[in-house]
Amino acid sequence: MLEQKGFVNRNKEREELWTADEFTGRLRNVGRSSYHDKHPFHIVMHQGNLSKEQIRGWVANRYYYQKSVPIKDAAILSNLPSREMRREWIGRILDHDGRPGEDGGIEAWLRLGEAVGLSREEVIREEHVVPGVRFAVDAYVNFARTKPWIEAVASSLTELFSPDLISKRIKVFEQLYPWIDRSGLDYFQSRLTQAPSDSDVALRLVLTHCQTPEAQQRAVNALRFKCDVLWAQLDAIEKAYP
Amino acid sequence: MLEQKGFVNRNKEREELWTADEFTGRLRNVGRSSYHDKHPFHIVMHQGNLSKEQIRGWVANRYYYQKSVPIKDAAILSNLPSREMRREWIGRILDHDGRPGEDGGIEAWLRLGEAVGLSREEVIREEHVVPGVRFAVDAYVNFARTKPWIEAVASSLTELFSPDLISKRIKVFEQLYPWIDRSGLDYFQSRLTQAPSDSDVALRLVLTHCQTPEAQQRAVNALRFKCDVLWAQLDAIEKAYP
Repeated sequence: MLEQKGFVNRNKEREELWTADEFTGRLRNVGRSSYHDKHPFHIVMHQGNLSKEQIRGWVANRYYYQKSVPIKDAAILSNLPSREMRREWIGRILDHDGRPGEDGGIEAWLRLGEAVGLSREEVIREEHVVPGVRFAVDAYVNFARTKPWIEAVASSLTELFSPDLISKRIKVFEQLYPWIDRSGLDYFQSRLTQAPSDSDVALRLVLTHCQTPEAQQRAVNALRFKCDVLWAQLDAIEKAYP
Repeated sequence: MLEQKGFVNRNKEREELWTADEFTGRLRNVGRSSYHDKHPFHIVMHQGNLSKEQIRGWVANRYYYQKSVPIKDAAILSNLPSREMRREWIGRILDHDGRPGEDGGIEAWLRLGEAVGLSREEVIREEHVVPGVRFAVDAYVNFARTKPWIEAVASSLTELFSPDLISKRIKVFEQLYPWIDRSGLDYFQSRLTQAPSDSDVALRLVLTHCQTPEAQQRAVNALRFKCDVLWAQLDAIEKAYP
């Protein structure tokens, strides 16, 4: 009887909306449990124990993610329901692709590649990108193209967690990987200010537009999906560069 | 026999590429035969014989096209194969949606609406938009989302023909429709400089990337399709505002 009651409760549809604080808490919990800072490869990276080969493999593979981010954001842009939202979102694309007189994040990532000893050409040719990384990133782009815009927006909320990780990473690279040219770290420096501003916009959209329990749950699920996308990339990189 | 030979010839696959000049000529021919400046509704507009009701109907319906243009361009942006191309294309979205401190084309169109006696609200609510306009515009957005990027780019080449039409239209509105507040014509003024720069980029992409006879033909077909999209809108507007 008790067990059956428990079973029924666990499966009962939630009838009340989470408050903004509860909802934000659920989203942050996804990061606490599943963000890729907990991945073994990242842990070893931050202990300073990755080889040059492994760092290069990570940078070369992660390029495929970086180059796909503006494609993903243009897909979201095309699905956003208002000009006001597009005006807020389009800066993400300019941040990555660059503006007149400003190179942007993809170029900065290529400079990181050079700083770790990869040629621009081999990075751009994607010759080191392994299938598992490609599949995960393509799944993310496809999610942004085909899912309702609010879920695609919610999936971007890993930016809530990235500033912490990136500020640690800058120190780690400077102190534990002194062979990496510091000029290669511009990408991370830029993200320290871009990510919080981006996640403010996305979080406000998600809190405002998810107005049923189901919509709130779908946003949490979208963020989990995105964490899976990041995690699966590290799985594939770890496997390729043991 | 002769007739059969003719039949065979007409259906023979073209084996040689058009030169850049021939190809450009074919594209311009599409405009000469099918651009909507030849539509009866446009002809009457430029003769100064549309009623206030008809002008208002045109502006209110055409808003649906205007608001869909950046959605279409974001879809193309998401399909473009390089950062360099995206950097050239993204300005179209900013032109329509606006930049910080700059309202953009959709806002300018709303001011045109006010200049012809429509409230912003009734235009934004799309209460005058007729199904035929909606279907044609949605077909254009769908084309941009689902077709190869180069065909979507080719479909934008009606911008080769629009400056001529728009410069005439500014004079027509000023001289033959003096009841329209001149401040409403900013949209057309902006397009006089934006359209040639946009079509330069698009034409260069099409000439460079259509490197088989079939690809060239598909570009011509895409431009014909776009002319149909514009023409069908005027058909529907003409029918709704007799």
